Order: sequence, then C-alpha cells, then structure tokens
Amino acid sequence: MGNDDTVGSLGEFGLIDLIAARLPQGQQVVIGPGDDAAVLRTGDGPIVATTDLLAEGRHFRRAWSSAYDIGRKAAAQSLADVAAMGARPTALLVALALPADLPADWPLDLADGLRDECARVGASIVGGDLVRDGAITIAVAALGELGGHDPITRRGARPGDTVAVAGRLGWSAAGFALLEHEASTRTAAADAVVDAHRRPQPPYDLAMRAARAGATALIDVSDGLLQDLGHVAKASGVAIDLDSAALVPDPELVEIAASVGADPTSWVLTGGEDHAFAACLPGPLMPDGWRRVGHVRHGADVTVDGRELTGTVGFDHFRTL
Amino acid sequence: MGNDDTVGSLGEFGLIDLIAARLPQGQQVVIGPGDDAAVLRTGDGPIVATTDLLAEGRHFRRAWSSAYDIGRKAAAQSLADVAAMGARPTALLVALALPADLPADWPLDLADGLRDECARVGASIVGGDLVRDGAITIAVAALGELGGHDPITRRGARPGDTVAVAGRLGWSAAGFALLEHEASTRTAAADAVVDAHRRPQPPYDLAMRAARAGATALIDVSDGLLQDLGHVAKASGVAIDLDSAALVPDPELVEIAASVGADPTSWVLTGGEDHAFAACLPGPLMPDGWRRVGHVRHGADVTVDGRELTGTVGFDHFRTL
Repeated sequence: MGNDDTVGSLGEFGLIDLIAARLPQGQQVVIGPGDDAAVLRTGDGPIVATTDLLAEGRHFRRAWSSAYDIGRKAAAQSLADVAAMGARPTALLVALALPADLPADWPLDLADGLRDECARVGASIVGGDLVRDGAITIAVAALGELGGHDPITRRGARPGDTVAVAGRLGWSAAGFALLEHEASTRTAAADAVVDAHRRPQPPYDLAMRAARAGATALIDVSDGLLQDLGHVAKASGVAIDLDSAALVPDPELVEIAASVGADPTSWVLTGGEDHAFAACLPGPLMPDGWRRVGHVRHGADVTVDGRELTGTVGFDHFRTL
Repeated sequence: MGNDDTVGSLGEFGLIDLIAARLPQGQQVVIGPGDDAAVLRTGDGPIVATTDLLAEGRHFRRAWSSAYDIGRKAAAQSLADVAAMGARPTALLVALALPADLPADWPLDLADGLRDECARVGASIVGGDLVRDGAITIAVAALGELGGHDPITRRGARPGDTVAVAGRLGWSAAGFALLEHEASTRTAAADAVVDAHRRPQPPYDLAMRAARAGATALIDVSDGLLQDLGHVAKASGVAIDLDSAALVPDPELVEIAASVGADPTSWVLTGGEDHAFAACLPGPLMPDGWRRVGHVRHGADVTVDGRELTGTVGFDHFRTL
C-alpha cells in the first residue's frame, strides 16, 4: 500500500482485505470476516451482547487522539459492558463510516487499536461493515459468554451490601478538561490524565472477579459514578450512600483541577469514560483490586455522606454535550 | 408524550424507555434492553453474528422513506446476512446517532419498523445505544443460531452445482431510479418498485430451506447478483455461468426502465438491496420457491451465457455512490 492511498482509492473490498489481514482469529471463531456473517463457538449457557456508537466530534476528535487510541477506546467501551455482566468477552463486530478522502492508514491504525484492546481479554474482531460518509462513525457490538455462571445485572443490590469500585474515577474527565483548555503543561500528571482520556483501561479481570465473588450488582461506570449507581439504585429498588472519605480525588486530579480551575471531586463523582466498574457485594470483604466506597440502604437515590447532591449528575448523550 | 417532543427534549434515557416499551422480548431473551448488555439463550452449536451501518443520505433519505420503512430495511439487511449462513436470526442490537432536534416520533417509528421486520423471523431487539449527532446513522448487529446445523458459507460451490435464486432481483434498483427521477407516474408497477426499494422483503425462510436442502454455498444478494456471485466464485475457486433466459426482467421492471430510459437487465444483474438469496445446490432439483439461474463450472469469474460482462458489476460503498 502506498502512503498516499485513501479509503476511497482502496475501495470497500480492498480496505476490508487489508483490515482483515491484521486481525488474528481466536479458537472460538469458526468463521471470521469475509462471509455474510461470522460464526462463533459458544461455551455453556447464554451469551451476552451489547453495542455502542462513537461519532467523530462527539466521542472523539482526530486532533486529540490517534486512530490507534480511538480504536482502543472504542473496543474498551463495549468490552467493559460485557465484563459488567460478569461475562468474558469473546468477539467484536465493528461497523465503520469513513470519508473517502481519509488516508487509508487511519482505519488500519484504528483496527490495530481495536485488536490490541481485544487481546487484553482474548476476544477477536470477527466481522464488520464499511460505508462511506462525511464524518467518521464507529459502531461496535461486543459478544461474550458467561461460562455457565449467572449474569450480574443492576437489579440485585440489597440493603446492607457494600458498594465498591475497581479502576480509576475522574481521570478521563481530567484529561478531557486539559485537552479542552489547550493547556500546554507537560507534567507527569498532565500526561497521565490525557493518556487516561485517550485510552481508558477498564480492569476487565476485576469485573469478572467481583462476579465470581458473589456481586449482587455490577455496572460499567461509563456515565459517571453517581449516575451509574443511580441506575443500580433504581433497578434494585434501594438507596446507595457513598462515603466521601473513600472518594478523595487522586493527587494527579487535584493538580490538574487547580491548573484549569475545576473541582476534582466532581470529576470523581460525575466523570464518565474511565470505564471503572462499580459493584454491590454481599459482605464487607473486598475481592482483590476492589475498594469500598459506600453501602446500600433501604430507600431510593444516591447520596454522599447521607446528603443528596444537586446539579449535574452525569452524562446524558443528548443533553450535556 | 406530546407531539412536539424531540429527541433532545426527551433525552437519552427518556427516549430509551419509550423505545424499549414497544419492543416485545422473545423466549430466547434472558435480559433485554436496560442493563450493561443483553443476555440471550442459545441453541445447540455455534452462533452467527453480523453488522451493517446505514448512513442518512447514502443508504436512505428521509424525503423518500418513512422512519418505519427505514427500520424495516435496516433490520432486513442484517437479518438477511444471518439467514444467508443458513441460520435462524434471534436478536438485533441497534445503535442510533440522532440529531437533537429530530421529532421523537421518528426513532419510535423506526423502532416499530425494526420490530416488525424482526417479527417475521421471531427475532427480538435486545439492546442498543443512542447518541446525538448531526445526521442519522443506524448501526445494526444481528445474531442467529444454527440449531446444530453447519453454516453455509460462500466457499463450498463445486463444478456441476446448480445456481439458484430466491426473491426479487432489480426491483429495489428500479424503485431507486424512479425516486431519483422524481417521476410522478403512479402506475401499479411504479408503486410496486418504489415499495420494494423502501421495504425489501428478504425470503428468510427460503434461505433456511436451501440450507436444509444441502446448499453448498449461500449468499445474500445485497450488492448485485453478478458481484455477489463473484464473491462465491472467488471464495469457492470456481466459475459461475448464468443463463440469460432465466434472468429476464419482470414486466414491471421493463415498464419502469422504459419510463426512465434505463436497461432493466442491468437492474437484474447489478441491482442490490432487494436482499434476494443466491445458492449453489448439488443437484438439479430446486427447493420450493427457488429458481434455477445458472450453473457452476471449473474456472474463475462470473459469466452470462458464457460471456464476460464489462462495466459496472455491482455496488461498492466507496466507489459508486
């Protein structure tokens, strides 16, 4: 491929061939890309399926993130949803809308990012679609298997449960704020939060660990801790009270917040896209890698130290952007 | 819901609730919309998975098709891919990008169309995603089960096989031509081809019937008969010769072609989006509903009456639109 190839000059089938050639297929794949549909072996019991759509300018910006990082993030978002059911991700389907004048390296780098994030959990990219459009859209569907275990939903939280978190909170939001302010400070903290925004690293294994440890509810923190725990509280018919002492912002967030004039605690409580996991657990003991942040009570809604918070509580894809 | 509600005024979660409320969940669904991911029971053996993306202005136009018809078409496209593996579709995931000022009735009507097309095969819409964007994008992933049967790929055609078609060829292309010419003729044929363009009706059951009858190859005719059989010929390492006498355009196509100055035979050979099925069958006997259109030979490429055709041979999503 010459360096001046574009999506349009390669054409749909030329580009599909190049992408498929860089996607290894795991043992679970009977038929990978190239036929009308993919065919996948499944383990015992039911399968898990989810989808997410990322639109350029809204979920990512080419000026802020490389194609590779956008691929990592797009895969992470859907793989985290599968893991949040207590399932092991097995496969991704990726539908892309791309401008014809886009350099062909862009979707190839994107595919590498998708592939490498899938490799973290042993999933394969088994199929997709390519169409031409004015802007870039990335639609990912992810599949997973429960291996004979019951799925962990948002509905099982019970009064007395411990509420715990695995993974970072607020880092992606801090990175977004820094990029938005076009801050040129290159401290270690700045680099770290911008990296976290560009390439979230959901702790997939910890989600599965919580599921095996008997979690009564499990959720991917994609829209912010308050909002996502609000979904758990509503679905389970319970109240959740968070402990502010367990939600102190990391020093990196405090540093960045000072530099852009923001409140680091609001990032921890309402920042999405880190793809941490939140779980309700039936006892006081935490699985390795999890930390206690609150508890489940009788009632409704989510409080912090017993008090309701007002104002923005998370991310609504129609309202807040 | 008031008639002046928009996607933006309802918000992501309000709209999701309204959509989910109109989507019945089949017996195969353990957990439907509303959690991190859906959970589906599967039958014996492997599952089938595929995805397609439809972009406004490229795959549909709001001026030409109702939201309901666009939903029917979007579902049909992916369900046909599942059926073309010889599988029974079980579930759809639908990710939507929508403008905030879009009337809320639009995605609700779309959901009705998706639902009703799924009902033709007993599939359920088990999950999705909603994001805001400037234009409408619809990404559909479809899942299916093989019920213990082997998948029918594009790779198994053998010299001596009969090539057969089930479903309409060229009707959607004729409807597209008529809409593009802004023709105001309201003959029965004009109505019929415009309907066929707006709402293709893949004969899903016939695809599964061919699979059970021992089809050696099976494909969804989405990009045009010549191009899609070209995929079969290439994947199987064979030549396919079509019989022009078996591909005479229907009288409706002849009438429409005369009115817009087009060649109806090219619609039959290169028109996509009817989502007919093409199969290679090991003997001369056709399953009910299938018609013979040619045969498989040693060699390569697709010919008609033994002659190669030049010029456009189908639909490349990057090149021809």
